[in-house]
Amino acid sequence: MNIGLNLSFAVKRWMKPGQLARMCKEDFKVDHVQFTWDLIDPWWPDVPRDQMALSYKAAFEKEGVHIDAGFAGLAAYSYANLLAPSAVQRDIAFTYFKRAVDLTVAMGSKVLGTPVGGMNYDDARDEEKRSELYQIMLDYLRQLAAYGEERGLQEIHIEATPLWTEFPHSPEVSVQMMKDLEETAIPIKLLIDWGHALYKPLLKAEADMELWLKKCAPYVGSIHLQQTDGMLDRHWDFTKEGIVTPEYIKRAISASGLEEILQYLEVVTIFEEEDDAVYEGIKKTMDYLRQELSI
Amino acid sequence: MNIGLNLSFAVKRWMKPGQLARMCKEDFKVDHVQFTWDLIDPWWPDVPRDQMALSYKAAFEKEGVHIDAGFAGLAAYSYANLLAPSAVQRDIAFTYFKRAVDLTVAMGSKVLGTPVGGMNYDDARDEEKRSELYQIMLDYLRQLAAYGEERGLQEIHIEATPLWTEFPHSPEVSVQMMKDLEETAIPIKLLIDWGHALYKPLLKAEADMELWLKKCAPYVGSIHLQQTDGMLDRHWDFTKEGIVTPEYIKRAISASGLEEILQYLEVVTIFEEEDDAVYEGIKKTMDYLRQELSI
Repeated sequence: MNIGLNLSFAVKRWMKPGQLARMCKEDFKVDHVQFTWDLIDPWWPDVPRDQMALSYKAAFEKEGVHIDAGFAGLAAYSYANLLAPSAVQRDIAFTYFKRAVDLTVAMGSKVLGTPVGGMNYDDARDEEKRSELYQIMLDYLRQLAAYGEERGLQEIHIEATPLWTEFPHSPEVSVQMMKDLEETAIPIKLLIDWGHALYKPLLKAEADMELWLKKCAPYVGSIHLQQTDGMLDRHWDFTKEGIVTPEYIKRAISASGLEEILQYLEVVTIFEEEDDAVYEGIKKTMDYLRQELSI
Repeated sequence: MNIGLNLSFAVKRWMKPGQLARMCKEDFKVDHVQFTWDLIDPWWPDVPRDQMALSYKAAFEKEGVHIDAGFAGLAAYSYANLLAPSAVQRDIAFTYFKRAVDLTVAMGSKVLGTPVGGMNYDDARDEEKRSELYQIMLDYLRQLAAYGEERGLQEIHIEATPLWTEFPHSPEVSVQMMKDLEETAIPIKLLIDWGHALYKPLLKAEADMELWLKKCAPYVGSIHLQQTDGMLDRHWDFTKEGIVTPEYIKRAISASGLEEILQYLEVVTIFEEEDDAVYEGIKKTMDYLRQELSI
């Protein structure tokens, strides 16, 4: 088992490439990170955007830390993207994801990861419309995989979310979606987040990571690790009390045979949290997880 | 006193222009809204972006609802913007805000509103660096006001936030910043948010809306209304228990003589909240506020 770190904790706090890379390596002792689009927006004009991307790439390379993936953050998740009600907006989202491929490749990463978007109130409640939007979204993902192959990307990881107005949101829908995407130009895999998989108000008896991982095992590309109480999508660090224990992590991984899959700690704090408290939370969490999981 | 509505509640829930405009007019009975960049990202390619902007414009005009302003949402607030550590990123942010002016003007709105950005950990703790970034940010705002005038924008409203790593974050810093921006091409005013102004962990004895409004009165352009407990920036609707009472609202407005300033309810929910619960919260809040404030 190996633990990486999603850079979401650093948003608006530690944005200097050298400083952030050193912090990841020396303080948090990770070798693998996921870069977040909350640090560089794929929409930014190509030249200065890629200039920034290259300075993160160089800084992390210098520390020997792999930027495994470019991953959607809070800004990306604020939009309806590939499930938007209008064709105009869905097409804008496709342009966005192609730009995200460019950014990911510019940073030297092999994987792009993201949720696909969300449906409008009435679309989500209309079975025919849901099915139409689902097919449209799959088609865009197939095109994105083809674009990714062209640009040298190796995999796309689709994140399951805890909203029934999005796809995929359950083990069953996740497996179906992965089956529907089996013939893409580069592999499309699944990212499962502990806090999404354990979200009880939506999933009830299926709020069970062992069940999720066993059912989805052949398709899992990466995992997001967070502490949660199962009542909201908390994205807490592990200094908070929650239901994700080292025993649970070990059991779920071992039952599904996913020991090789990287789990990235993804802590999302409120903006008004003090920087030092965020730092301490990540530091203690990484130390705790390494000790408890014997990494 | 008049109450408007920031469209943040509608993000990823009610994105169809006609449906949203009708909901605002018929269900929530508002005549004034602030559009949020979480519904249309200023970065989106001009042609489809403005096509979407025009359909919102037409739909709200049809219902007789004024889109008073274009306002930064969660996506915009995820970036360091004009206070970013690198000159490259600050310049990207300036391009972003110019695009936001274009979007705002395309929707027929007169006001652009936004926080200015946030500082890196070490920059925020270095008095000299803070002062340098503050001056750079002011200069960009002056240029933005000039660009706004050119495009037909009438005012820029800068939002005070509950973070000392951002400007402005207190009544004193707000007044100073407004004084420093008195000679701009179009007026730059202040937006004060109830939940930011009452944030006790930062403001202590100054977490007092009457004090904020009295001190800042000559500069206030608009107000964000939310329910809060003063311990975090809650952005609750008024079905939740909190410290913002109708009496408090009336007292603070009357003490500062700001009866003419519009207060926009800005509710921000977690993504996994059910749509119907969000709708009910807004509906009950608008009914309650209208009754209690005798509007």
